[in-house]
Amino acid sequence: MPTPCDTLVTASHILTQNAAREIVTDGAVAISGGRIAAVGPRAELAAAYAPAETVSMGQALILPGLVNAHTHAAMTLFRGLADDLPIADWLHNHIWPVERLLTPEAVYLGSLVACAEMLASGTTCFADLYFFSDQTARAADAFGMRAVVGEGVLDFPTPSAKTPAEALDLSRALFDHLRGHPRLSAMVVAHSPYAASDATLAACADLARRENAVFTLHAAEGVTENADSLKKTGKRVIPHLHSLGILGENCLLAHCVHTDAADLDILAATGTRVAHCPRSNAKLASGTAPVPAMRQRGIPVGLGTDGAASNNTLNLFAEMNGASLTCKLATGDPTAFPARAALDAATLSGAVCLGIPDIGAIVPGGHADLAVLSLARPNMVPFFDAPSQVVYAASGAEVVLTMAAGRVVYRDGRFPDMDVAALFREARDMAVSLAAKRP
Amino acid sequence: MPTPCDTLVTASHILTQNAAREIVTDGAVAISGGRIAAVGPRAELAAAYAPAETVSMGQALILPGLVNAHTHAAMTLFRGLADDLPIADWLHNHIWPVERLLTPEAVYLGSLVACAEMLASGTTCFADLYFFSDQTARAADAFGMRAVVGEGVLDFPTPSAKTPAEALDLSRALFDHLRGHPRLSAMVVAHSPYAASDATLAACADLARRENAVFTLHAAEGVTENADSLKKTGKRVIPHLHSLGILGENCLLAHCVHTDAADLDILAATGTRVAHCPRSNAKLASGTAPVPAMRQRGIPVGLGTDGAASNNTLNLFAEMNGASLTCKLATGDPTAFPARAALDAATLSGAVCLGIPDIGAIVPGGHADLAVLSLARPNMVPFFDAPSQVVYAASGAEVVLTMAAGRVVYRDGRFPDMDVAALFREARDMAVSLAAKRP
Ligand SMILES: [Zn+2]
Ligand SMILES: [Zn+2]
Repeated sequence: MPTPCDTLVTASHILTQNAAREIVTDGAVAISGGRIAAVGPRAELAAAYAPAETVSMGQALILPGLVNAHTHAAMTLFRGLADDLPIADWLHNHIWPVERLLTPEAVYLGSLVACAEMLASGTTCFADLYFFSDQTARAADAFGMRAVVGEGVLDFPTPSAKTPAEALDLSRALFDHLRGHPRLSAMVVAHSPYAASDATLAACADLARRENAVFTLHAAEGVTENADSLKKTGKRVIPHLHSLGILGENCLLAHCVHTDAADLDILAATGTRVAHCPRSNAKLASGTAPVPAMRQRGIPVGLGTDGAASNNTLNLFAEMNGASLTCKLATGDPTAFPARAALDAATLSGAVCLGIPDIGAIVPGGHADLAVLSLARPNMVPFFDAPSQVVYAASGAEVVLTMAAGRVVYRDGRFPDMDVAALFREARDMAVSLAAKRP
Repeated sequence: MPTPCDTLVTASHILTQNAAREIVTDGAVAISGGRIAAVGPRAELAAAYAPAETVSMGQALILPGLVNAHTHAAMTLFRGLADDLPIADWLHNHIWPVERLLTPEAVYLGSLVACAEMLASGTTCFADLYFFSDQTARAADAFGMRAVVGEGVLDFPTPSAKTPAEALDLSRALFDHLRGHPRLSAMVVAHSPYAASDATLAACADLARRENAVFTLHAAEGVTENADSLKKTGKRVIPHLHSLGILGENCLLAHCVHTDAADLDILAATGTRVAHCPRSNAKLASGTAPVPAMRQRGIPVGLGTDGAASNNTLNLFAEMNGASLTCKLATGDPTAFPARAALDAATLSGAVCLGIPDIGAIVPGGHADLAVLSLARPNMVPFFDAPSQVVYAASGAEVVLTMAAGRVVYRDGRFPDMDVAALFREARDMAVSLAAKRP
């Protein structure tokens, strides 16, 4: 007797990202209650399961929904507002002045656009650091996405909080608000060691420990951060964070571009995770993080798009490609960060970074978060090697179906629960009005 | 009385790339006999012209069809066949053995896939260097594209010619074959100074002069080329080519990654053009060409995708993005190679490189080669700055319509004259059969 299940998705190829990195040809994924019941040859699963619905994708590749380990979703409102500028000019004269004008409604709209963009390019889960972050959670929920969101804590006034104490209160409220949610959870966010005092960082770390949650911050992104830290604390950025007792398996550091061997040894010894944002680091000319040295030490390296003001997309296919190419350039080694490593970073390692073990692979028991790429596009022909095709040939626009928690949340340019044409009009108007109000 | 014209294309934005780099909002392009009759505000053109057909694109951006200044179209057959390898291993054990098996039919199929991929990502004209190049011309013609094709001349046997003399004969025949064609023309191709003797290079240069055609070759791509050239000729690559009298305004050098100030002074003084292939150079870890120093000297720099075995796409949107990001990384300067420069490289400078003055801009009298991007995609929201959106936010998949010589050659995933599903099946089979036959 076949076992009933909710959905059977079939396709010519499945990139499982399981422990053996199996690629199933002429395969199927059986889904029940938002989880993967089984994955394997189509004929076997068709015999073993009686699905309420079958989704036949034909000449297509099913892969795990991608995991964006570092973004600021609402910054889509500032996409293309200011580019090709020195960082100080960009931040002080463009980004910060317009960020001060943010409202909960603006963050909601910007986050909705971001969710649409991520789902349309196969990302099913993201880690978000920003302000009014309950609104980003609301947006993710409206699209049925998975997300880990955190309210930025800084020693300066933010759009949502006048003091770090207020921001910490918002942070605590966010944990209470999202507790028990099936797809959403909270994390603790301190902007960076240069924008948060040691006392603020300690308070953040304390909250993260009590909530058993991820604590994330920007670290060693810019070229001057280590020199500034040495002047202020007598230590480079990573040793300074280590001395505060912040590093560890729940700690996720974004960027880590300017890290030397001693820094990386500390990250490895403490089990700290890294969100690598290669295209943002390239666009701002920050440099290229030493990813091969991180991987050699077993440091989990996820991939982040960063915000749309510095990328300017939230597309993890572009990011996987950029991660591999920038690494090859930085090392002069064409074998560095091969396609499989980039794919692991955007799936399995992203899951580790976010502390969500049940995503990032198509395995029985895992969350049914999937992306399906059409192989009927010119740039997908021929098809020799799935990881190479995903990392080097795909643009992300080959995604024809995205599923989160077993539900189709994107298909062929459409989102089942959202009139995106109206959303995009509102978001454009909001972006233009914020830009116009800049001092 | 309104003037009759063939087609009026309207859209919310037109990126003209004219001398003033005007961006027309709520605009239109009037087309007659395959040429642009006028470009301007929609209301004005609607009153001035009586079009046989109006194509209303709505919330969309019209830009000049992009120009791919260096590719090997048929290498789509080897996309994903071998990646993440040291260059010598990649060439000797993978690419060259399978290239030896190429047939005219294989080159035709691979080139058809390439044309489909380029048109679907807004490229209307390409410069192709390969073997059996009459078949690449045939493929471009089947899709109604514009192309400049050349038969590779080497001192070694090629798939199409046993000797350089035979390859030169094929080259001459190609000129005769394409003479007078409205969209296709021939150029002279020597593979590189390391694969062609001085005598062969001189014979190629001579043919190019007699035909008043472009002469193109690979130069200073790999890290060892200058050292090898010094050993063999006593000169670095560029001075060696200069001593042979090859450089000049009809000479297009691909790559030029390893060029110093003296090399660039020679290129500038001789009017030589460069086809910059940043993503191929990154994937093979060859390095990043000194593009700002080239531009400073007024050297025309076009953009090339190179072949799909080393990129692995023929998408100039990805290439514009990669050109800007790799340049910012290489220089440590976030203002380097801004969006406008990347866009110029893929349009106006590409036209200069290929010696086709009437493409690369939407100006009266120019060829009606256009790409239209939908702005109704999540990653196109909001829309502050057209060049930034094209270079930093677009993936190329936003292209919904491509026009070459006034004719719609791609629209919404479909090609008017080609059953691409059947083509892709044939191309996949051909690729698999070639790969299987490798020694
Ligand atoms: Zn960030
Ligand atoms: Zn080439």
